[in-house]
Amino acid sequence: MAKILTNRADDYSQWYNDLVLKSGLADYSAVKGCMVIKPHGYALWEHMRDELDKRFKETGHQNAYFPLFIPKSFLSKEAAHVEGFAKECAVVTHYRLKNDPNGGGVIVDPEAKLEEELIVRPTSETIIWNTYKDWIQSYRDLPLLINQWANVVRWEMRTRLFLRTTEFLWQEGHTAHATREEAIAETKQMLEVYATFAEEFMALPVIRGVKTANERFAGAEDTYCIEALMQDGKALQAGTSHFLGQNFAKAFDVKFQDKSNNYDYVWATSWGVSTRLVGAIVMAHSDDDGLILPPKLAPLQVVIVPMFAKDPEAQAKVTQVTQELFRTLKKLNVRVKLDDDENTRPGWKFAEYELKGVPVRVALGARDIANNVAEIARRDTKEKSSVSLDNLAEYIVQLLDDIQKNMFQRALNFRTEHTIKVDTWDEFVKILDEKPGFVSAHWDGTSETEEKIKELTKATIRCIPLNNELEDGACVLTGKPSVQRVLFARAY
Amino acid sequence: MAKILTNRADDYSQWYNDLVLKSGLADYSAVKGCMVIKPHGYALWEHMRDELDKRFKETGHQNAYFPLFIPKSFLSKEAAHVEGFAKECAVVTHYRLKNDPNGGGVIVDPEAKLEEELIVRPTSETIIWNTYKDWIQSYRDLPLLINQWANVVRWEMRTRLFLRTTEFLWQEGHTAHATREEAIAETKQMLEVYATFAEEFMALPVIRGVKTANERFAGAEDTYCIEALMQDGKALQAGTSHFLGQNFAKAFDVKFQDKSNNYDYVWATSWGVSTRLVGAIVMAHSDDDGLILPPKLAPLQVVIVPMFAKDPEAQAKVTQVTQELFRTLKKLNVRVKLDDDENTRPGWKFAEYELKGVPVRVALGARDIANNVAEIARRDTKEKSSVSLDNLAEYIVQLLDDIQKNMFQRALNFRTEHTIKVDTWDEFVKILDEKPGFVSAHWDGTSETEEKIKELTKATIRCIPLNNELEDGACVLTGKPSVQRVLFARAY
Repeated sequence: MAKILTNRADDYSQWYNDLVLKSGLADYSAVKGCMVIKPHGYALWEHMRDELDKRFKETGHQNAYFPLFIPKSFLSKEAAHVEGFAKECAVVTHYRLKNDPNGGGVIVDPEAKLEEELIVRPTSETIIWNTYKDWIQSYRDLPLLINQWANVVRWEMRTRLFLRTTEFLWQEGHTAHATREEAIAETKQMLEVYATFAEEFMALPVIRGVKTANERFAGAEDTYCIEALMQDGKALQAGTSHFLGQNFAKAFDVKFQDKSNNYDYVWATSWGVSTRLVGAIVMAHSDDDGLILPPKLAPLQVVIVPMFAKDPEAQAKVTQVTQELFRTLKKLNVRVKLDDDENTRPGWKFAEYELKGVPVRVALGARDIANNVAEIARRDTKEKSSVSLDNLAEYIVQLLDDIQKNMFQRALNFRTEHTIKVDTWDEFVKILDEKPGFVSAHWDGTSETEEKIKELTKATIRCIPLNNELEDGACVLTGKPSVQRVLFARAY
Repeated sequence: MAKILTNRADDYSQWYNDLVLKSGLADYSAVKGCMVIKPHGYALWEHMRDELDKRFKETGHQNAYFPLFIPKSFLSKEAAHVEGFAKECAVVTHYRLKNDPNGGGVIVDPEAKLEEELIVRPTSETIIWNTYKDWIQSYRDLPLLINQWANVVRWEMRTRLFLRTTEFLWQEGHTAHATREEAIAETKQMLEVYATFAEEFMALPVIRGVKTANERFAGAEDTYCIEALMQDGKALQAGTSHFLGQNFAKAFDVKFQDKSNNYDYVWATSWGVSTRLVGAIVMAHSDDDGLILPPKLAPLQVVIVPMFAKDPEAQAKVTQVTQELFRTLKKLNVRVKLDDDENTRPGWKFAEYELKGVPVRVALGARDIANNVAEIARRDTKEKSSVSLDNLAEYIVQLLDDIQKNMFQRALNFRTEHTIKVDTWDEFVKILDEKPGFVSAHWDGTSETEEKIKELTKATIRCIPLNNELEDGACVLTGKPSVQRVLFARAY
């Protein structure tokens, strides 16, 4: 089988696009900036959704669904929010088409103009807080812990499959609390839910941190984030959790009566992750032969490929042993497929399942059976080994666990190697170009310096890590005093 | 607790609205015609989705996701389709807002006008078949069996919570086949998936049938449907499965090469059910005290309410026994809640869980324990009984099964009583007014007669039942010859 992907070393960006398209994760669509999520990509997202949803419910949240459309006037109600979101929206102005009297298909019916335009939600704080106004009267109605799985639209000029698309799928949690402290605790709790999900399930090590004022969500008092490192040394923001203070409660007049009969505005949080995580999985783990999926997330964890024999008796034996293994793995809740299609050569199948990222491949032929072994290939390291048929299923279950751990450790090692402390401007610039990754450096705390650094190097402050050690130092650009290092990187 | 719902007998329509709002299924929103699906309603939809999704996957389908937006020109490509759908669409014309120079918040930026307007999908045949053109070249690419869970928008002038809303959630299956026969078999298979789901899971008996030409999906050669009967005698279309012939393949030029190297257009089906099913559950089963949910669908199947005692020792015993029962039911995979909130009276809790439709309530006090019994109330019949604490959990599991069956049987009996054969026009009109339900009558097979009957009585032909018996007769309106009866009803 011919090589179908560009090598990462030759063109990382092209490798990514090739891989997303050829492994069947997604496709371009007829609508500029929107993608089609193909079955393999959607299966990844489904696994993420189900696992996250379980964790949200375990922390007391319920799902609900709010309208796709937001009245235009709602966007103006929170001053910072409108600055951040109103500029790149899909706007619905009419509600009917009609036949073109000149025979040119259908045209917009000018008589069906909306009195107030509707915005396709770029995020739902405004429509949700307008609803919460009716749902919250007393402290007894709090906390209100709601999550929504939905599509959102942000009009993007430069798009990339999964990483930045005009429409994307996500979840957005929106919670309401009686006190500032409780809302902050919720914000941090959900960040930790994201972080442990990323690390345990996606095998993706993340830095937990807080954004600078410049990088905050429009309307938030504080934005917490998890930041991951991709194989090209660029950072990727994998999830955010916002403490919104009383900003939206004030904008939509949501007050509650406390136990002492006093009225106060409600405290809010919001938090979200999106289909961008599928892109993160690809960029963090995969190689020049295809996807490498962490077993906990892989739609298919094991594929069994029988090697056909000409001798009917030997063939019958191969069929029997592979079918037995299939059934045993099924019983152990392994997501397994037996690919016994006789019209396709094993070599073609091997390449195809490597491309798709199946963690473990089992090949079994008559000779193997005679030797009481199977050939096991693990996708993460591409190692092959002969493994005894005795207790093979248990061996595979353990191997899936090992692969999950190895993938996390490998990504963590990569991040450690690519997180470098620098103390001079020359070093800062040099590292970003020669060994890109996280650069840990002192910063004087001003937006001006942050913007200047971005202008000079394209690097942004990804976050101030939580539990950062305080350390006196001098800003890497201005030399002004600083009390802690922050993490810089170029980012997706 | 005061009566909070209108009685069905007084005003069925008001009862429905009251119930949906007060039981926490949904709420009105700030956007005309769109609703907010509240946690209790969304939990019902989630259970439906998970169960249907399992059945789709068992029949070989995969999920994918296609864009929310459809280029306007796509709608014109299939002649019948555009007639059916283009008239009531949300149209996106601009992609940016800007600050009003006169200080009036934000306004649509006239410079950000799209070259071609985008339609918010009312259904996705066009964008999907435009994509399938790239995915299908050979018979090896067929069948293509894809489903999508999504939101869609149809601009409705008269809306009703769940039953008819501008935006709704649904799934739409879109499959491609090499032969007419295979596509028809798929269409019928998916109708049967819907029918068994409705009957087994929703306890909702349905008529499997085929629509007349008048009632067909815009662009289909045949529309199959399942029709259910509500308690007011109106019918509700609960799901449809369409055989699309080669209409969309021709419109989007999707051909495949067969085994003999001939080219032919691909054969298509599409099929869907929506959040309307939540409305069907309410209308088919519930009563003047609240929801009655079939156990298989109920987010919460059992609630345990401890009756608090003043004596600490008795109280400790109540706590112990109720907690044990809770744990035992959990282990048996029952969705159970122990409501030991001391700030709320048992009577209030009883009414609340009745309103929300929890199938089984267990009340347990010190005296009950002394007598080795619990008080069990079943929601469907409102019967209460004293049941021995020995093997109580097993009794409850069996009871849930009994309730599921009883609800189905009750709805089936209602439908049988309200399905009436009539042979004269006077009878036809009289039955529709005095004992509404399905009216089984002869029809001459013309669209004109069908429309005339609708005009005179508001009744439509719901379907021609599958496996209908052929029977010579005379059309109930025109007296012209007919070979079979069809089912008429007024419908939602």
